[in-house]
Amino acid sequence: MIKLYGMTGSGNCWKPAVLMTMLGIEFQWIEIDSVGGETRQPAFLAMNPNGRVPLLQLADGRYLAESNAMLCYLAEGTPLLPPPGYPRAKVLEWLFFEQYSHEPYVATVRFWIHYLHQREHWRDKIAEARAKGEAALAVMETALSRAPYLAGASFSVADIALYAYTHVADQGDYDLSPYPALRKWLESCRQQPGFFSMR
Amino acid sequence: MIKLYGMTGSGNCWKPAVLMTMLGIEFQWIEIDSVGGETRQPAFLAMNPNGRVPLLQLADGRYLAESNAMLCYLAEGTPLLPPPGYPRAKVLEWLFFEQYSHEPYVATVRFWIHYLHQREHWRDKIAEARAKGEAALAVMETALSRAPYLAGASFSVADIALYAYTHVADQGDYDLSPYPALRKWLESCRQQPGFFSMR
Repeated sequence: MIKLYGMTGSGNCWKPAVLMTMLGIEFQWIEIDSVGGETRQPAFLAMNPNGRVPLLQLADGRYLAESNAMLCYLAEGTPLLPPPGYPRAKVLEWLFFEQYSHEPYVATVRFWIHYLHQREHWRDKIAEARAKGEAALAVMETALSRAPYLAGASFSVADIALYAYTHVADQGDYDLSPYPALRKWLESCRQQPGFFSMR
Repeated sequence: MIKLYGMTGSGNCWKPAVLMTMLGIEFQWIEIDSVGGETRQPAFLAMNPNGRVPLLQLADGRYLAESNAMLCYLAEGTPLLPPPGYPRAKVLEWLFFEQYSHEPYVATVRFWIHYLHQREHWRDKIAEARAKGEAALAVMETALSRAPYLAGASFSVADIALYAYTHVADQGDYDLSPYPALRKWLESCRQQPGFFSMR
């Protein structure tokens, strides 16, 4: 059976868990205390030299890191990842957008505020990150005001990737009320068969 | 003909240019002054709401952003991107690693030092980023001491993505001498048919 090493509360770890649930793929969740440093221990680094969760272990023992690589691997051949061509490229565009322009600002601010309870300590960094996080949310709003899902007419792994930290953005003091199309999209994601939220 | 909007000197913009050259795909390079703010002008934002280069415009007029999404799109069906399955997933793992764990530290330090000439102004940020950049280079060294290329036995778009900012890392004061396997890999990349470096 597939094993998923992850930390509860991490949006990146939630992504492959929700996708496998939607696709009916059985897996075993193995809790890793990432905040407590478990991903930096030799036993974990032997599995993933980059020292991060989530980490997927296939039934044959091979490992795969990077949540969005997992989404592409697991969704191959399903309606959640279009076949090769421009529509697939647009899904990938959003997956890279998520890791470069969204997660480092939306997820990180949430981490400082919601997990570390250090809103004051990180005040300058939070202010800097928030401007970029708001820019990312605005890019999403633009796309979602033109189509129901990020990559177009159909729900895809791009929506899973961006839902991860957007649906808990308020835990990082992000106010989603200026983004009506985005809020409607969050609700559409929740209606997908087999979908579940982190909360 | 495909158009590639990019800024000379940007590793992200170099990636699709070198790939198209290697694959014999003709394209037109359109220089964009990203540092001067051209990507934030309304005309550019109408093409890419995320306001970044590179930006690819296909022959039919459609746009594609995100350098690593371009690599996957353009390399589909060639030996530079394995068919769907685990080997492709490992290529994607490196592409996401590059954008999340490497580029924000290796490319950004180079930008502050080599383009802005502001080594002193950004001293604290450079120190913080450098530790993470060195960690990324160490992860690459581990992989490249086990296999000739990042995703295994064959050169792939993963190597193009990581070559981009690694081969100019010294412009950000990174010293590659502690990474012998990585230096050998840089040379192997340069031997690929049709390959060219930014310098």
